[in-house]
Amino acid sequence: MTQKLPRQATASEESLMRIFTVPEDADSTLSIIEQKLSEDLAGFLGDSIAALEKPLSEIETDFQTFEIPNQPRFVSDYTDEIMQNLVAHSVHTAAPSFIGHMTSALPYFVLPLSKMMVGLNQNLVKIETSKAFTPLERQVLGMMHHLIYAQHDDFYRNWMHSANHSLGAFCSGGTVANITALWIARNQLLKADGDFKGVTREGLIKALRHYDYDDLAILVSERGHYSLGKAVDLLGIGRDNIISIPTDADNKVDVTQMRKIAVELAHKRIKVMAIVGVAGTTETGNIDPLKQLAALASELNCHFHVDAAWGGASLLSNKYRHLLDGVELADSVTIDAHKQMYVPMGAGMVLFKNPEFAHAIAHHAEYILRRGSKDLGSQTLEGSRPGMAMLVHACLQIIGRDGYEILINNSLEKARYFAEQIDAHPDFELVTAPELCLLTYRYVPASVQAAMQVAIEQGDKAKLERFNEQLDGLTQFIQKHQREQGKSFVSRTRIQPARYFRQPTVVFRVVLANPLTSHEILNQVLIEQGEIATLDKEFLPALLAMVAE
Amino acid sequence: MTQKLPRQATASEESLMRIFTVPEDADSTLSIIEQKLSEDLAGFLGDSIAALEKPLSEIETDFQTFEIPNQPRFVSDYTDEIMQNLVAHSVHTAAPSFIGHMTSALPYFVLPLSKMMVGLNQNLVKIETSKAFTPLERQVLGMMHHLIYAQHDDFYRNWMHSANHSLGAFCSGGTVANITALWIARNQLLKADGDFKGVTREGLIKALRHYDYDDLAILVSERGHYSLGKAVDLLGIGRDNIISIPTDADNKVDVTQMRKIAVELAHKRIKVMAIVGVAGTTETGNIDPLKQLAALASELNCHFHVDAAWGGASLLSNKYRHLLDGVELADSVTIDAHKQMYVPMGAGMVLFKNPEFAHAIAHHAEYILRRGSKDLGSQTLEGSRPGMAMLVHACLQIIGRDGYEILINNSLEKARYFAEQIDAHPDFELVTAPELCLLTYRYVPASVQAAMQVAIEQGDKAKLERFNEQLDGLTQFIQKHQREQGKSFVSRTRIQPARYFRQPTVVFRVVLANPLTSHEILNQVLIEQGEIATLDKEFLPALLAMVAE
Repeated sequence: MTQKLPRQATASEESLMRIFTVPEDADSTLSIIEQKLSEDLAGFLGDSIAALEKPLSEIETDFQTFEIPNQPRFVSDYTDEIMQNLVAHSVHTAAPSFIGHMTSALPYFVLPLSKMMVGLNQNLVKIETSKAFTPLERQVLGMMHHLIYAQHDDFYRNWMHSANHSLGAFCSGGTVANITALWIARNQLLKADGDFKGVTREGLIKALRHYDYDDLAILVSERGHYSLGKAVDLLGIGRDNIISIPTDADNKVDVTQMRKIAVELAHKRIKVMAIVGVAGTTETGNIDPLKQLAALASELNCHFHVDAAWGGASLLSNKYRHLLDGVELADSVTIDAHKQMYVPMGAGMVLFKNPEFAHAIAHHAEYILRRGSKDLGSQTLEGSRPGMAMLVHACLQIIGRDGYEILINNSLEKARYFAEQIDAHPDFELVTAPELCLLTYRYVPASVQAAMQVAIEQGDKAKLERFNEQLDGLTQFIQKHQREQGKSFVSRTRIQPARYFRQPTVVFRVVLANPLTSHEILNQVLIEQGEIATLDKEFLPALLAMVAE
Repeated sequence: MTQKLPRQATASEESLMRIFTVPEDADSTLSIIEQKLSEDLAGFLGDSIAALEKPLSEIETDFQTFEIPNQPRFVSDYTDEIMQNLVAHSVHTAAPSFIGHMTSALPYFVLPLSKMMVGLNQNLVKIETSKAFTPLERQVLGMMHHLIYAQHDDFYRNWMHSANHSLGAFCSGGTVANITALWIARNQLLKADGDFKGVTREGLIKALRHYDYDDLAILVSERGHYSLGKAVDLLGIGRDNIISIPTDADNKVDVTQMRKIAVELAHKRIKVMAIVGVAGTTETGNIDPLKQLAALASELNCHFHVDAAWGGASLLSNKYRHLLDGVELADSVTIDAHKQMYVPMGAGMVLFKNPEFAHAIAHHAEYILRRGSKDLGSQTLEGSRPGMAMLVHACLQIIGRDGYEILINNSLEKARYFAEQIDAHPDFELVTAPELCLLTYRYVPASVQAAMQVAIEQGDKAKLERFNEQLDGLTQFIQKHQREQGKSFVSRTRIQPARYFRQPTVVFRVVLANPLTSHEILNQVLIEQGEIATLDKEFLPALLAMVAE
């Protein structure tokens, strides 16, 4: 391991230096690919990504080597290889018929801007390695803050660029954003007091002892994102202390239940640290009654966080932003720009109503993040991180409010169109209607729908369960085959519809964020699913037999 | 706020769709800039970034607007603007004379590959949005694991692509990597046991009660990175429970002291949760005695984590990897690819010796991360995140072990060269010699050095303190002016050299990672600093007066 190599020959050193100094030739494989990316991204993706799905186990055979190779390789050889092994078996997330997740087509200009960002290789942790990127990021946070909270001019003039204040924190994604918000909320609640130096210094045990709480809890809808579980695990609060509150028929949290549970917790000396409202649940896209949650948080004197990682972008629509009414009452709000703001992956944000909120996690170090500096790293969870805020800045300026108005309204209205088509189709069932641009549904032959309706009216839960069991199998069958055929993609999840007495039910899940998804494509998705259903030789026959019983 | 806009005219909708479908014209501002980036990155950066530093307060005036503009903008107008406001006032982190931080010049091929990565817009949280990127990331983790632990072939064949195992976790940077390691270590220590469901479920209070510990502690060198403080804050352990252990004259942690403190903690029923070894401290670049730390961790039956965020890349050098001997005994190791592995910002990793280690944080959700799936998101702190592993993969293949051998050996040897120059120069003092490629020094006129030597021999701490106070001012003066002149950049920090009886001492800090930094540039840095020193009218005269006393 410690064997000494002879000093390398100058020739190989020089050829190595070339990768830092001599660009790829314009005729090189990589340059040609890059040109194609620039000229026709959709064409590149369509041509390069294999239409038919290869099983993961086969893909893995190309990624078996576990030793870093000794010999350097030519860029063109490497590029040829990854075009076949990697790019061909990537997911065409930008395809207009890829409507199963929150990724979308990207505006063209983000590609060259991303390349510029990478070339500049700034590190946002501190001014010394980011300079103008720091005020730019603060401006992006200011704009997003204004979108939510619409404070007066003076507010932004005073705090947006203030060394000791933050209107929010930029991060890699919504999970880190949610963790950041709850971290600060915990530290604020258990702050220094008298002899007690605060949870940040002394830890959770001593903090609870000092404040005389038996434990902490966080209240959130049963539809809350799994990142909240990670957050309380990390924070030492424990997953069992995320109290999962039931939702009503519309998948919105039941605030009456929440209030009742809060009272019970108080009797047990368990302090509610935060209420989390969900503005766009990941599975059904619904928005909690934010105003009522804000009122409850105020009664309980606890932090109110809104997880609008996905739904927050809808604030950019003047027509539909009323759906998120009450978000402006939140103490902190998570929004991902890489979801519906058309920014590439890796751009999350959390916004703080109070510019002093992040003081509860401020930290300093000698060589950077000195007190009084404007280094962003002193109030973020992450340390070194790239200048992704630039891409959010670009989208906000180039698309503008008027552009986002169109994009978001079209998305929401496309979802309503698709919901109507599903509703009107005899063999499909709309399970959750779209509040934003997310909906769930499944394939249920008309005769099965009729038989289930009878069972519902008779309150025959056992029968419904038998139907639902077969339908779950059928839904999974259709979703998997559709994905494998590679023409279109919907995702699937499992929810508990009130209509089925909360029996767990597997459904297709569709997110209509891609501006290029047309009505024709949506109609085609239903046709394709109907065709795939007929290929099933297990669940569909069983269902039809049950109808005939 | 909820005012209804009329349905937008089709014309503006169509022009909006163009940003998703029609690429920038080859003659457009952005295309021309991109071409320049491709043809001559160094030239682009050199030409576009202003040589003279503009005060931050002036830069901020261009980032004052806090309302998202209504009107969409032309890409070319926006590009012109950010070239002036943003790019011109960025930091030239790739410049060969920018030797103050851990960024470096990047290999050319990462630019087009980054653009491809952005265009593919994969989300690594789950297979459904990343497919081949998942096995690729697992392979990168396997290669890095092998670099550290060099297990047998069967080990990698069994675990590298196993759904229920992870050889490590990819993340945005070293901070998240360190947090992940300590999070898992905490959860492993306080795991489910009998009726107790584990800290992950029940939280820290009940966990300590169950295991009958009064508190937890983490032992680390006083030179440990500030991210460890963030980690224990987040984890509810409290910053005061990071026990900062003194270092010896070489800035390596004093293991005898650490053992003594561990015994004291045990008497107080405070459980040492983890020992953290630093392999390349951020401020002096030294490496803790990892074998001794491993032995102590084994005695204490606690987790042993090595923070090799910066130094870990040196394992790629067969000639120098012995400097990190003992790293293979660590339970977990942090390495940042965006530091000395020449990958752009945003590529951190933590590697786990035991492929089952991450089980302690495994989490699942209905719509993704299903049990048994190979979704990477079930065992990472972050949720959605980009396919940065591709850039690490590319560098490992294209540069290869032989290439990294040259790059790293050259860096370390360049640091030794620079140390010799500083040592030989009558007016400079080498404060910490380079173990890897990081060193610290300061400007101290020969006559001052002589006078201080006398004071050291006389043990006259008061006099040394007076000298050091003025020298601190002078070092800050030089560093600031050098940065503002824009020709070269060193950073500064404050350390406590044993030679000066541990008086806090401000020093220049230099990291020699950029392959393009020549000996000539280093010589020039000393000349420039000597010249700047003569411009100082405060500290230098005071120092010379003290010598004359």
